[in-house]
Amino acid sequence: MMEVVSEARAHGGTQGVYCHRSVATGTDMTFSVFVPPHREGMRLPVIWYLSGLTCTHANVTDKGEYRRVCAELGLIFVAPDTSPRGENVADDDAWDFGQGAGFYVDATQAPWAPHFSMWSYVADELPALVAANFPVDMDAQGITGHSMGGHGALTLSLRHPGRFRSTSAFAPIVAPSQVPWGEKALGGYLGADRAAWRGHDSVSLIEDGARVPGLLVDQGDADSFLDRELRPHLLAAACRAAGIPLELRMQPGYDHSYLFVSSFMEDHLRWHAARLLAGRSTGEAVAA
Amino acid sequence: MMEVVSEARAHGGTQGVYCHRSVATGTDMTFSVFVPPHREGMRLPVIWYLSGLTCTHANVTDKGEYRRVCAELGLIFVAPDTSPRGENVADDDAWDFGQGAGFYVDATQAPWAPHFSMWSYVADELPALVAANFPVDMDAQGITGHSMGGHGALTLSLRHPGRFRSTSAFAPIVAPSQVPWGEKALGGYLGADRAAWRGHDSVSLIEDGARVPGLLVDQGDADSFLDRELRPHLLAAACRAAGIPLELRMQPGYDHSYLFVSSFMEDHLRWHAARLLAGRSTGEAVAA
Repeated sequence: MMEVVSEARAHGGTQGVYCHRSVATGTDMTFSVFVPPHREGMRLPVIWYLSGLTCTHANVTDKGEYRRVCAELGLIFVAPDTSPRGENVADDDAWDFGQGAGFYVDATQAPWAPHFSMWSYVADELPALVAANFPVDMDAQGITGHSMGGHGALTLSLRHPGRFRSTSAFAPIVAPSQVPWGEKALGGYLGADRAAWRGHDSVSLIEDGARVPGLLVDQGDADSFLDRELRPHLLAAACRAAGIPLELRMQPGYDHSYLFVSSFMEDHLRWHAARLLAGRSTGEAVAA
Repeated sequence: MMEVVSEARAHGGTQGVYCHRSVATGTDMTFSVFVPPHREGMRLPVIWYLSGLTCTHANVTDKGEYRRVCAELGLIFVAPDTSPRGENVADDDAWDFGQGAGFYVDATQAPWAPHFSMWSYVADELPALVAANFPVDMDAQGITGHSMGGHGALTLSLRHPGRFRSTSAFAPIVAPSQVPWGEKALGGYLGADRAAWRGHDSVSLIEDGARVPGLLVDQGDADSFLDRELRPHLLAAACRAAGIPLELRMQPGYDHSYLFVSSFMEDHLRWHAARLLAGRSTGEAVAA
């Protein structure tokens, strides 16, 4: 059901890469999981990390610098792929659409609908698979992501109230309905009716009443996509109007790369752990 | 003279990639430098990191997880390439010989001699270039490396007494004259006369009288190259006979990958810093 692609010791835990046949996408899907050192039989909080355009699980797995802190705090870290892939899967020549750019939606439009069901994949299928195969405490889930993956993290959290006890993002797309990347992707996958887009637009979701307890967002001010695609002030305005506590940190001099993500990964993981481990001793896990 | 390929903010400092025309190799050479946050006009200790077979500067730059600790300790981190490269440069179909596998020697044999002068490059040319272009304190140099790069770090340090105040290695090749990788490379680059190999074999160098003040070596015990290519007990025996303090740490369950290197990078950087910053306040740099 789930094939081990690789497993290796890292920071006292195990960094694995796994492959399985997905019902949601109708393709093989690859993802990575870091399991920190822990006592046998314990279940650990889990951080879901959704990646950005062009990425696979490998970008954050190689460059995210999350393992040391996950090992210290006792967090499992899961990184899915960003789309279905394969020769028989629809694709586009652009790097911001098609394979590598699933945008965490269930496509309704041809030729994407048969395989591009990343919403169902990350919201339902992968969590069930991970819960069945790794020592995760599904009552202590946090979610984060980068760029398109920040969009995915925010929308998943907004649409599953109570599921994620902590939500953060690195340089997220916050209002895809209002920016070129998003208009292209949501139009292509969901069709021209913009009403269908609102369920996949964080700002629209908040306007329509969705709530989360709080958000941490880091954004580099030297990010070349800042003004055109990311526009975090739109999220700030929506959160202000809705009374959602948003900690938006503009980071001077940082770009959109994994040098930015890795620089602030520790802050995010500690922010998540403070919420996931609230009421427990630090690093304490729950009995399975 | 030196072209900036990329520079980006990371952990409060700057991760750069640079390219220059090398006299030693007669080719363009690419390397990376991380400069931590520091006061203007200060000069900082420098760690040279030599990479292993098949690697470029990019492997450790992406996966080494050194920036956070270098930023904390005030260390500059330099990562050269492992060989000359290019269409007009000799190569071999094997992954452990030719381009990507320069072995940190000056080749004397055809077809390698015209370009494969990595010893001169890392011992002389690159240090001069870095000293001229970055705020390094050349009186506070440490050197480390991985696998073939551990071999390079050990031999460079052994043959430049006093230059490196700290020397360490991750899973190094310690006795290339006695293992397949080394016999192929030293035979190919330096010729069949094994006398010429002794200057590029750490165990032989120690037997012949070379000394360093001390060594830190980490080695995974699940490393698939351990018994055939790495054989750290040969270094241990040579150090014991020579009275060189060697801290050889066998790390249970770790393999040969960057998951291993990154797991112990912090320990190595702190070990270097303790020696490079001895007599200074932590993080204090010297005036330029």
